[in-house]
Amino acid sequence: MTSSIAKELAKGQRAISVAEFFEKNRHLLGFANKAQSLLTSVKEAVDNSLDACEEANVLPDINVELKEVKKNRFKLIIEDNGPGIVKKQIAPIFGKFLYGSKFESIGGKQSRGQQGIGISSVVLYAQLTTGKPTIVISKTSPKDEAHKFKIHIDTKTNEPEIVNAETSEWMKDHGTKIEFEIEAKYQESKQSVPEYIKETAVINPHAKITYVGPDNKKLEFPRVSEKLPKKAKKIRPHPHGVELGILKRMLKATTARSLKSFLTKEFDKVGSGTANEIVKKSELDPKILPRLLTGEQMEQLLNAVQDTKIMNPSMDCLSPIGAEILKNSVEAEYDIDFVHAITRPTTVYRGMPFQIECAIGYGGSLNPEGRVGLMRFANKVPLLYQQGACAISKAVSDVNWKSYGLQQSSGSLPNGPAVILVHMASVWVPYTSEGKEAIASYPAIIKEIKLAVQECGRFLQRYVSKKKKAAFEAAKKEKFKGYAQELAIALSKLTGKPMEEIHKKITEIADTKFSKFEEELDEMEEKSKVKPKEELEEEEESEEVEQNGNNYQ
Amino acid sequence: MTSSIAKELAKGQRAISVAEFFEKNRHLLGFANKAQSLLTSVKEAVDNSLDACEEANVLPDINVELKEVKKNRFKLIIEDNGPGIVKKQIAPIFGKFLYGSKFESIGGKQSRGQQGIGISSVVLYAQLTTGKPTIVISKTSPKDEAHKFKIHIDTKTNEPEIVNAETSEWMKDHGTKIEFEIEAKYQESKQSVPEYIKETAVINPHAKITYVGPDNKKLEFPRVSEKLPKKAKKIRPHPHGVELGILKRMLKATTARSLKSFLTKEFDKVGSGTANEIVKKSELDPKILPRLLTGEQMEQLLNAVQDTKIMNPSMDCLSPIGAEILKNSVEAEYDIDFVHAITRPTTVYRGMPFQIECAIGYGGSLNPEGRVGLMRFANKVPLLYQQGACAISKAVSDVNWKSYGLQQSSGSLPNGPAVILVHMASVWVPYTSEGKEAIASYPAIIKEIKLAVQECGRFLQRYVSKKKKAAFEAAKKEKFKGYAQELAIALSKLTGKPMEEIHKKITEIADTKFSKFEEELDEMEEKSKVKPKEELEEEEESEEVEQNGNNYQ
Repeated sequence: MTSSIAKELAKGQRAISVAEFFEKNRHLLGFANKAQSLLTSVKEAVDNSLDACEEANVLPDINVELKEVKKNRFKLIIEDNGPGIVKKQIAPIFGKFLYGSKFESIGGKQSRGQQGIGISSVVLYAQLTTGKPTIVISKTSPKDEAHKFKIHIDTKTNEPEIVNAETSEWMKDHGTKIEFEIEAKYQESKQSVPEYIKETAVINPHAKITYVGPDNKKLEFPRVSEKLPKKAKKIRPHPHGVELGILKRMLKATTARSLKSFLTKEFDKVGSGTANEIVKKSELDPKILPRLLTGEQMEQLLNAVQDTKIMNPSMDCLSPIGAEILKNSVEAEYDIDFVHAITRPTTVYRGMPFQIECAIGYGGSLNPEGRVGLMRFANKVPLLYQQGACAISKAVSDVNWKSYGLQQSSGSLPNGPAVILVHMASVWVPYTSEGKEAIASYPAIIKEIKLAVQECGRFLQRYVSKKKKAAFEAAKKEKFKGYAQELAIALSKLTGKPMEEIHKKITEIADTKFSKFEEELDEMEEKSKVKPKEELEEEEESEEVEQNGNNYQ
Repeated sequence: MTSSIAKELAKGQRAISVAEFFEKNRHLLGFANKAQSLLTSVKEAVDNSLDACEEANVLPDINVELKEVKKNRFKLIIEDNGPGIVKKQIAPIFGKFLYGSKFESIGGKQSRGQQGIGISSVVLYAQLTTGKPTIVISKTSPKDEAHKFKIHIDTKTNEPEIVNAETSEWMKDHGTKIEFEIEAKYQESKQSVPEYIKETAVINPHAKITYVGPDNKKLEFPRVSEKLPKKAKKIRPHPHGVELGILKRMLKATTARSLKSFLTKEFDKVGSGTANEIVKKSELDPKILPRLLTGEQMEQLLNAVQDTKIMNPSMDCLSPIGAEILKNSVEAEYDIDFVHAITRPTTVYRGMPFQIECAIGYGGSLNPEGRVGLMRFANKVPLLYQQGACAISKAVSDVNWKSYGLQQSSGSLPNGPAVILVHMASVWVPYTSEGKEAIASYPAIIKEIKLAVQECGRFLQRYVSKKKKAAFEAAKKEKFKGYAQELAIALSKLTGKPMEEIHKKITEIADTKFSKFEEELDEMEEKSKVKPKEELEEEEESEEVEQNGNNYQ
């Protein structure tokens, strides 16, 4: 063998742009088929609008419009009243993959978008299927002009290709308006745009969302709350999630001049005492300059960190939905008799803070023989695809629902007149692919989801139990009243009292005994429904106080 | 709102390197947990070795060694006799994501690696978990020196960081040797390195693979065939998979000076006649310079292409495993009585050629009540994770196995003493994530897999049927022989012939009738097993001739 073969092979080597890679792998981005592509396109734009508005402390006003241009081809127009985008950033935000503001190597905060891929994937999909550039109009303040860009992505270089850029008149004070033309399929049923819009509107009651479908049918979701949701704050990384390679990088980059100050400065929840404990455990010289640690010393430090009890990460980086809004979500979708919702305390997976919320609805017009409904959310975004691949489905299927009043074949989702809603809030949701359709099955996450649904399940079990008992009592009563006549006659003969009087007394007793159960049942159902707005705000405040208590891991 | 908020937000925007992205998303790459990480690391290196050897027409000699350095930490050493890597390419190949030779924007050929991600992900995982650089020794010819590199990935820039580079003495004539140190968990059971090595060795009989595990246990898989597998050739894209955006790019880049020559020059399977037909259908001026087509004219051309019947793509770009080797694979893993294997004709999904192969084994010591075993392969690589997410599982579960002799709950994998093997060969396998663990569920792919397993299923059904009949006949015979004594006595009295003579005759008749079934059964089992090498080569040649016949789509 001469080296010529190796040289031949070397000629074929080249750098592939990430845009080219995604162009060939669009199923990774949520564009596996025409129906899903439509949903992904709307979702990415609306999620960005909500994030931007919240970032700017603006109550969101979002318009979504779908127009059918011809068979299987749609124009999507999404407009918001957010802060707008400065001129220089418009092209790279839309025309470059992995360009964004929400990606943090370590630490971070909860947001819908995570990594600068979503909106670029829509631009790419549009140019691939219709050849049309994406049109972006954006204005940052009333005294500035609006900028109007037409953008493609150059897939060979992963750089934006500006087809046209001009200033424009726009009545709005500030905001962004995006127009795509894509190949798509429209459906009104499950996994549809109307479903996504509705679920999004309900879990974001501070937003006003208007949707006009291809048939010109208008759906309006007015603003229900004038209060912006709790704003997530960026936090530093939690020590228990940091791996050797990351620690190495942090040590090389830090300006701290001692191990103790490195630990307190660079990490979340490491105070003076904890830092001292870690340094002591590591058996390293406390005066070593962090930048000069050898590989072996870094490992010593890491082991000491992992051996030390450290407080749970701050909640500041998260913004859960809250029990009341969750109950609202279930009631908005389904006709039910009973609902219960909970928010678990924060916890971590791989050092990243996360929080699970759960709601269970039961009864009403839900099919008693059917599979339970599953509503999945991550960082306040509805997940409508890839249910089978999602950690939420796995966790729910793993729970033994028979003890909570539902039927279930082992390892499957349960059956019964119920719907289960699960929300995962995190600084970093690990999705199964870049399309953000399903949550990856990390054991810590599955475990926490199970705890959440089991907690709700116990409330469900009490209700179902009571309901069964009430039904039983009702049957008993009827049967009893069936004999009342005969009994009354016999007692009348025995006591000499009039038959009608005795009969009346008997039925009174039966009714009284049963109505006690009816009352308790009604009370459970009432308590579970949504409270008026004032009570809601009071509760939120008291929940926050409770959650901020310290928990040691 | 002033524009200051928008300006604040703009400050946070930045380009994220793809290395940083993958560092945070390692579960996308096949490193979700320690056991899987070990497998992925071995797999990526061995796959590259096999691809390189085949590219260079070298019969592969591959050594894999795992050494336990300490608890949960392993050294992996993978060495091959391939063509080696030229000095300049070593660092980028290992230290840069999306750098490689196998990625084609359109068209292409079958290979194990696809996109320049695999080996870099191992380098990243190693530096993340142990901080250790990857060591690469490579030599391209006996007269050259070997080069020894120690490589990290700079995640901020996605560029290699060469810790050390030097020349080195190496006895080998040519080849590559890689050493990683990673955090990992070793298991011997399912989804293990030994299982991967074994399955890989069996479907690549031209390769010699030696494996030394952490317990120093040695597994040797000698070369079984001196014949290299059919070499896949790069082909041009097939017209039916090309979308508007890609067509646009091709038209802008082509040197062709007429539409007809553009079509025949740039596409696979478009001859003079087909090109004329397409141009005519498009109603475009045949003399237009392709580069000057307007957007609307491009759509006309695309519609005409999609409306025209075009021959199936060439098989040249694919290299299937072959029925005999597939049967070998099943027999190497399981003790079975019967096996059948088939290779389907090539077909397309989204314009990419692919081919499904299937084998089914039955009986032997397989558990009659258990779930059937599933062996999945893509481009000659065993898929050991994410079975539930894989198109193969979905397709197999969708088939009604009751008509083929197995039990099945609707929508699940069937039960019975069987194992089903499916292989997908393609110029581009669409995986559910970059980790290449499961095949994405494109309808065209699922449909073809179902046809393949149903074809095998029919052979299985005939065998199972015969076996049941034989069992029935055997039972009948035994029952009959049970009465033989009484019958013989009675006939003896009737005919005056001696009882023993008549008894002998009766059992003879029963045995003869039954053995006919036994023979037919034995014949079926014999025919299904692996043939001697000469027969094998003859069959391969005749299969090729058959498959190259033209099929119109």
